[in-house]
Amino acid sequence: MQSKLPNVGTTIFTVMSQLAAQHGAVNLGQGFPDFPVPERLIEALDKAMRAGQNQYAMMTGTPALRQAIAGKTERCYGYRPDPDSEITVTSGASEAIFDAVHAVVRAGEEVIVLDPCYDCYEPAIDLAGARAVHVALDPETFAPDWQKVRDAVTSKTRMIITNTPHNPSGAMLTADDMRELADIVQKNGLYLISDEVYEHIVFDGRRHESALYYPELRERAFVISSFGKTYHCTGWKVGYAVAPPALSAELRKVHQYNTFCTFHPAQAAFAEMIEADPAHYETLGAFYQEKRDRFREQLAGTKFRPLAVPGGYFQLVDYSAVSDLDDVEFSRWLTKEHGVTGIPLSPFYETPQTGQRLLRLCFAKSEPTLDAAIERLKAP
Amino acid sequence: MQSKLPNVGTTIFTVMSQLAAQHGAVNLGQGFPDFPVPERLIEALDKAMRAGQNQYAMMTGTPALRQAIAGKTERCYGYRPDPDSEITVTSGASEAIFDAVHAVVRAGEEVIVLDPCYDCYEPAIDLAGARAVHVALDPETFAPDWQKVRDAVTSKTRMIITNTPHNPSGAMLTADDMRELADIVQKNGLYLISDEVYEHIVFDGRRHESALYYPELRERAFVISSFGKTYHCTGWKVGYAVAPPALSAELRKVHQYNTFCTFHPAQAAFAEMIEADPAHYETLGAFYQEKRDRFREQLAGTKFRPLAVPGGYFQLVDYSAVSDLDDVEFSRWLTKEHGVTGIPLSPFYETPQTGQRLLRLCFAKSEPTLDAAIERLKAP
Ligand SMILES: CSCCC(=O)C(=O)O
Ligand SMILES: CSCCC(=O)C(=O)O
Repeated sequence: MQSKLPNVGTTIFTVMSQLAAQHGAVNLGQGFPDFPVPERLIEALDKAMRAGQNQYAMMTGTPALRQAIAGKTERCYGYRPDPDSEITVTSGASEAIFDAVHAVVRAGEEVIVLDPCYDCYEPAIDLAGARAVHVALDPETFAPDWQKVRDAVTSKTRMIITNTPHNPSGAMLTADDMRELADIVQKNGLYLISDEVYEHIVFDGRRHESALYYPELRERAFVISSFGKTYHCTGWKVGYAVAPPALSAELRKVHQYNTFCTFHPAQAAFAEMIEADPAHYETLGAFYQEKRDRFREQLAGTKFRPLAVPGGYFQLVDYSAVSDLDDVEFSRWLTKEHGVTGIPLSPFYETPQTGQRLLRLCFAKSEPTLDAAIERLKAP
Repeated sequence: MQSKLPNVGTTIFTVMSQLAAQHGAVNLGQGFPDFPVPERLIEALDKAMRAGQNQYAMMTGTPALRQAIAGKTERCYGYRPDPDSEITVTSGASEAIFDAVHAVVRAGEEVIVLDPCYDCYEPAIDLAGARAVHVALDPETFAPDWQKVRDAVTSKTRMIITNTPHNPSGAMLTADDMRELADIVQKNGLYLISDEVYEHIVFDGRRHESALYYPELRERAFVISSFGKTYHCTGWKVGYAVAPPALSAELRKVHQYNTFCTFHPAQAAFAEMIEADPAHYETLGAFYQEKRDRFREQLAGTKFRPLAVPGGYFQLVDYSAVSDLDDVEFSRWLTKEHGVTGIPLSPFYETPQTGQRLLRLCFAKSEPTLDAAIERLKAP
């Protein structure tokens, strides 16, 4: 049997996590917190189960959670999406992205993605029978070159996928970027997936440029977020898409026959969390900024050169002073020889940048974990 | 914007649940239990959360749950699938079906479905760019006519989807059916999705004919099940697919970029439940048989004629003695005028059977709910 996704192998996250386990390495690879979820979240979920919220939730998400998301979105971005027609709860942000692609992209069309890009975009595009067109971000700042994006648009282009704060780099789109993006989207009648799962993990007083601020983008966008990053529970897999009614209607048709609905008690729990502590979002930046700053200070005692981290929970480090292995080789070597695991960047590229020697380290970790990693990173 | 799924509207389940709520009707429509989940299940999930199983689970499912599924499958069907290469945990059986279709079906191909069929098959086929070819089951017994199925096979046919015990009818495939099916699948090099989510809800000592009993089917089949039906928690959305390594590998490529993984604490909870009480499965038939028998006895006091229910938790009733409205009209009328909601059958057909006057009533309900429904069904 010929594969429909011949290029898909085991994700780099799984490969590196397995290698880390095998060698007892400190795992700063796959992005997930190693500290506990809020006690209150566990209690809220427990309460929901005991209250009997264990049967199918509404296909679009529970009314309470959609209301809470509407309120949160308004507080954060000054725009209140209609919970009935503009918000859909999904089984993680990945499902939302998969559904959004399948909702509008047709066989033979093209979707522009900005490299390095998160690994779930292209397979979704492939399965829709379309083609991903890759435009590289700046190799040091990870800023988009909008002229290159304009040049990549053809009559077949249907959609563009952006991600801010950006995984794997931590770069953030600026207000200028958003205006360029809006112009391209509008002029060419494109749809946008704005992957904003790290929306609340932003540093140094920067503003997260949500597509929801911009009416010209909002009207053509699926804005995707998730609770996994915000409440330290990446394994709970509750995400959502905000999109105008016509786009939400199409996304829901896919969602309805894909997962239909999402684990019901967690929806109740997140609704309760949002209502109980609307300020939680605003504390998240400071929480992670402390980790980032401490980690970067410690990195100064190693040969790894940290790049800027405007947002997200990943620190890119340049390892040129340590090794001239390519990044895949290097990440394996570092795991085996020095017991620290990061994620190489080249798997996030269609055409890896020559000479780029960067490793992604996740700092969503407790102090002892990060301290242990730093001790080991001092060796090479 | 032109819809990719122009025929998809709100599911009949949602439509009828909303109408039931609006009219304060006893809702025997959408299939879900109205009694509590096992206390032990809640405790197991609680324990998993507190033990910190809140980050990404393995993409294929937790090792403990895949082991437990392998053991359960062997106990039930004498075949032990390899947990590493043949079992994939998904976010509900729907996702498993969606993934299986997208894993092997290509644009321009055909998939045979047997009408009336569950409503998620065709949209998945459509989104894969393929076409559903509908073959009607017998309108009274819901048995397949294998000659009709053979006649429907063309050079484009890639897959066939079966469902036993069957939703909406409760009919079950026999050993003879399985041999016919195996012959068709083998001779034409087809793949099979065997939707077996009601596998443990079977009555009167019948044997559930899992595709896993039959090596000729097993080697070309995705066998789909779910814990929602078995542990009374349809809103927990944990399902799985058993398929040979080559098919599992392709299904996992879709799953990996669709939902990636499933709510982690529930996986731990189900693993614990299966290991703690392997006999739970065998008690489920008796549990529902008591409900079925009582409900059918009570129906004898009404004008609704109950059809045979070999398995599943739905009772089809013929309402010819009550009304000659078509089934969609009738289900609305019964909700509004008499306060009982069932599901009409015609939405499960490409070409509804003329003169068929059947309503599907879910008996996965507590005695007071069923008693209240019967009281109201005596009126018309
Ligand atoms: C789905 S596993 C990958 C987790 C993640 O978001 C990352 O490490 O980038
Ligand atoms: C996903 S809602 C439909 C539930 C169900 O399986 C049914 O009622 O047939």
